[in-house]
Amino acid sequence: MDIKDLFKDIKKYEGKEVTLEGWVRNNRNQSNFGFIDLNDGTYFKSMQLVYDKDSSDFDKFSKIKVGSAIKVVGILVKSEGSGQSHDLKIKSVDVLGDCDSDYPLQAKGRPTREFLRDIAYLRPRTNLFNAVFRVRSVAAYAIHKFFQENGYVYVHTPIITANDGEGAGQMFQVTTIPLEKIKGEVDYSKDFYGKKVGLAVTGQLEGETYALAYKKIYTFGPTFRAENSNTKTHANEFWMIEPEIAFCDLNGLMDIEEEMLKFVVKYVLDRCPDELKFLDEFVEKGLLDKLNKLVNSEFTRITHKEAIDILKEANIKWEFTPDYDSDIAKEHEKYITEHFNGPVFITNWPKDIKAWYMKLNDDNKTVAAVDLEVPGAGELMGGSQREENYDKLMQRCKDLNVDTDTVDWFCNLRRFGGCYHSGFGMGFERLVIYLTGVENIRDVIPFPRTPGNCDF
Amino acid sequence: MDIKDLFKDIKKYEGKEVTLEGWVRNNRNQSNFGFIDLNDGTYFKSMQLVYDKDSSDFDKFSKIKVGSAIKVVGILVKSEGSGQSHDLKIKSVDVLGDCDSDYPLQAKGRPTREFLRDIAYLRPRTNLFNAVFRVRSVAAYAIHKFFQENGYVYVHTPIITANDGEGAGQMFQVTTIPLEKIKGEVDYSKDFYGKKVGLAVTGQLEGETYALAYKKIYTFGPTFRAENSNTKTHANEFWMIEPEIAFCDLNGLMDIEEEMLKFVVKYVLDRCPDELKFLDEFVEKGLLDKLNKLVNSEFTRITHKEAIDILKEANIKWEFTPDYDSDIAKEHEKYITEHFNGPVFITNWPKDIKAWYMKLNDDNKTVAAVDLEVPGAGELMGGSQREENYDKLMQRCKDLNVDTDTVDWFCNLRRFGGCYHSGFGMGFERLVIYLTGVENIRDVIPFPRTPGNCDF
Repeated sequence: MDIKDLFKDIKKYEGKEVTLEGWVRNNRNQSNFGFIDLNDGTYFKSMQLVYDKDSSDFDKFSKIKVGSAIKVVGILVKSEGSGQSHDLKIKSVDVLGDCDSDYPLQAKGRPTREFLRDIAYLRPRTNLFNAVFRVRSVAAYAIHKFFQENGYVYVHTPIITANDGEGAGQMFQVTTIPLEKIKGEVDYSKDFYGKKVGLAVTGQLEGETYALAYKKIYTFGPTFRAENSNTKTHANEFWMIEPEIAFCDLNGLMDIEEEMLKFVVKYVLDRCPDELKFLDEFVEKGLLDKLNKLVNSEFTRITHKEAIDILKEANIKWEFTPDYDSDIAKEHEKYITEHFNGPVFITNWPKDIKAWYMKLNDDNKTVAAVDLEVPGAGELMGGSQREENYDKLMQRCKDLNVDTDTVDWFCNLRRFGGCYHSGFGMGFERLVIYLTGVENIRDVIPFPRTPGNCDF
Repeated sequence: MDIKDLFKDIKKYEGKEVTLEGWVRNNRNQSNFGFIDLNDGTYFKSMQLVYDKDSSDFDKFSKIKVGSAIKVVGILVKSEGSGQSHDLKIKSVDVLGDCDSDYPLQAKGRPTREFLRDIAYLRPRTNLFNAVFRVRSVAAYAIHKFFQENGYVYVHTPIITANDGEGAGQMFQVTTIPLEKIKGEVDYSKDFYGKKVGLAVTGQLEGETYALAYKKIYTFGPTFRAENSNTKTHANEFWMIEPEIAFCDLNGLMDIEEEMLKFVVKYVLDRCPDELKFLDEFVEKGLLDKLNKLVNSEFTRITHKEAIDILKEANIKWEFTPDYDSDIAKEHEKYITEHFNGPVFITNWPKDIKAWYMKLNDDNKTVAAVDLEVPGAGELMGGSQREENYDKLMQRCKDLNVDTDTVDWFCNLRRFGGCYHSGFGMGFERLVIYLTGVENIRDVIPFPRTPGNCDF
C-alpha cells in the first residue's frame, strides 16, 4: 500500500500486518536495535521501520543500504520514540533493487543545491526537492482547476511558430536543414516548413483568436527565450499561463488575477501542509505567514503615475531615480508592496515601454496595462487590455516596426467582430519560486535549460 | 452575464431584463420580425434574440452583420417558436465590433474542413470546431484530474534535449547558430548549449527518474517528430501523456490504463453533452453509443501470440499475413476489437519490434509490453514494464546501438535502488479523435504543424 494511505488512517492499522514498498532513506543501528526510514514518494514523511537483535535476520536488515528499493512486511505498532506516532516492526524484507556504493545521496552530510543540480535526476529523492516538485505539481493542477471550473477553455497554442509574438527577437531557431551541408546562402524553401521558424516566446496571439470564439480561454505550456543571461530568475525554457478574456476590461482582468492567485495559493496551502512546513522551516522563514497573508489580503490598485509619486515622495536615496516615463526597478517594486503592506496592481503604463498590442488610453501616452507586484516576489503577472481598434493597432505596428505579414490574422480579429478584451501572462516558475521560497529558477524546474546547460 | 449561466437557470430569468455580450451567428428578418442568434462562446447553443417592426430600431437591428460583436439588453420571454424554449426580446443593442464584408464565416453555406484549416484562427467560431476544442479542453482537464486525485505528481520534462529517447532519430534541431554564417564545419561548442540539441520526442526517460522518487508521476506536454509524412494521423507537434509508476508490473499498468480511459470518457460524456450530441449527429453516427459502451465494457487481456492465433484462425484473406514475429496491422487491430466486442490489451510482444528499454521476458524472445486496442480508434496507448536489470539494459543498448553516453543517468537508475516499474504513453490527439469522431489530426489541434504548414 501507499505510505500516504497508511498515514491517512493510521490508527486503523495498529496491530495489523502491513506491506510497503519504497526506498531506504536511512538505516541506523545500535547493538540491539535498528531503524530504517522508508519513503515511497507518495507522502512527504517517511515510515520508520524497526528491527531488533531478537530477529534472526538482524544482520541482513542492518546491511540494507541507503538508496535501496525494498519490500517490507511488518506489524504496525505505536512508537516508543518521540519523532513519530507509529513504527512498523519488520517481519521480512525483500531487497528489490540494491544501491551501488557510488550513490551520491548518502544519509550523511547535506549536499549543496549546486551539487544537486548536477544530479538533477536524483534530487527529487531529497526532502527539499521532493517538497518543491510536489508543490509545483499541485500548483499546476490548481491553475487548471481554477480556470476549468470557471468555464475557461484550455488552448494548446503552437510551440513551433513563424511569429515572434512580443517582437523581442530572442527566438531559438528550429530546422531540419543539415547544418553541415550549408554552403553560403540558406534556402529556407527547403527547410521543413518552407520558411524560417522558431520556438514560441508566447501563446498570447493565438490565445486571443480563441478568446474571440469562447470568451474565456487560457494557455498553459512551455515558452522559450534564447536569452544569454545567467541570473537566478532566467531560464530558456519555462512554462507560462496566458488567460485571455473577451468582453473584459482592465478592472475585470484585475478581479480575475486576484481571484486566481488567491485560489492557487489557498489550494497549495491545503494540499501541501507537510511540504510547506518543511520549506518554512528550512528554506524561507515566514513562508507560511506570507502565503496565508496573501490569501486574506486586499490587493491595492494604483496607476503608474501614482506609484512614481509615492516613490518620489519617499525619503530614500534610490539607485534608480523613479521616472514617469520609465519602468520601475526592483527596489521600487519592493518599496511599493511594503508601502501598501500587500499585493499592488500598477496600471496605465507609459506606452513606450510596453508591447505593441496593448490598448492605447485616451491620453495617447499610456496603455491600459497592469503589472501585479507581490511582496516577496516582485512582478508576478503582467497583462493588459488589448488594442481592439484596427487602425490604432496598425499605427502601433508601424511605429514599432512589427512585421504585420506574420500577424495579419491577429490584426484581422479587429475587423471581424472585435471587442474589448484583456489578458495576462504569468510565468509559472515565478509562482513556484514564490510558493516554495526557493530562490533560483534552476531549482524549481525538473531539468532546467540555461545557457550552456542542456543535460538530461 | 454568460449565456451558459443564463441557460443553466433559465426559468429564474423569465420576464427579467438581461444583458448579454457575444457574437452574431445569424440575423434573419422578415417584414415584421427579426431573429439574431447570439453566441458568446461559453455555451454550445446560441441565444435567440427577437425584434419586431414595432421597435423604432427595426432597421438598425436588421442591419447588424453576421460576425459582429454586440452588447444586447432585453427581456427574457418564453419562445413561441419550436427550436428553443426562450427568446430574448431586444430592448437595445450596442455594436461593439463591426464585421467587415470579407468575413469568411457567413451564415449561408457550409465551408469545408479544408477551407477552415486555412482560417484556423476563426474556425472555433463554427459549431463543429467549437465542439471539438471544448472536448479537447475538457478531456485535458479530466486527465489531470484523474492523475492528481490519485496522488500522481505532474512532471514537466524538458522540450529542448540532447537525447533522442526512442532512438528513432527524427528530431527537429534547435540552434542559435546563424545559419547564414556557416562556412563548412559546424562548431557546436559555439551553439547555445555547446552541443547539438533538438526537440524532445518523448518525456519518458526523464519521467522515469521522477517515478523512482515519487512512485507515481505523469507528464502531459508537447512532443515532436520531424517526420515527413502527410497522413490523417501524423502531426509534427502533438501532446503526449506519459505516466510512469514504480512498484507496478504489467498487470498493474493495465489496471491503471483501463481506469484512466473510462474516467476520462465518462467525464467528457458528463461535461459536454451538447457538443457530443452535435458530433454524434453530424460527424460520427453512433459516437455516443461508442463512448457509453466503452465506459461500461470489460477490457480483454491477451498475449501477442494469442492475437496472432486468432488472426490466423479467422477465415479472412488478410492484406498483411499475421506473423508471430511482427507487428499487427490496422486490419488486424480492427478484427481483434470486433472479435472481443470491446477494448483489448495485447501483451508480450516480440522484442525486435519494440523499444530498447522494455523489460525482457524470461523466454528471451518477448518483452513485457502492452498495446491497448480500442474499437474505432486502433492503438490508443502503448506501454511496458521497464527493464530494471542494469546488465540486461546495457546489453539491449549494445544490441540496438543506443548511445549510452546521453542516457547514462537513465541507466544509472538501475544501480541506485532500481525496482520493477512500468509506464505508458498516450497521444492526446488520438484520444481527441476518438472522443469527437473527427478523423483528421489537423482538425483536433488548434494550429496544427504538418510538413510545409506552419501558419499562425
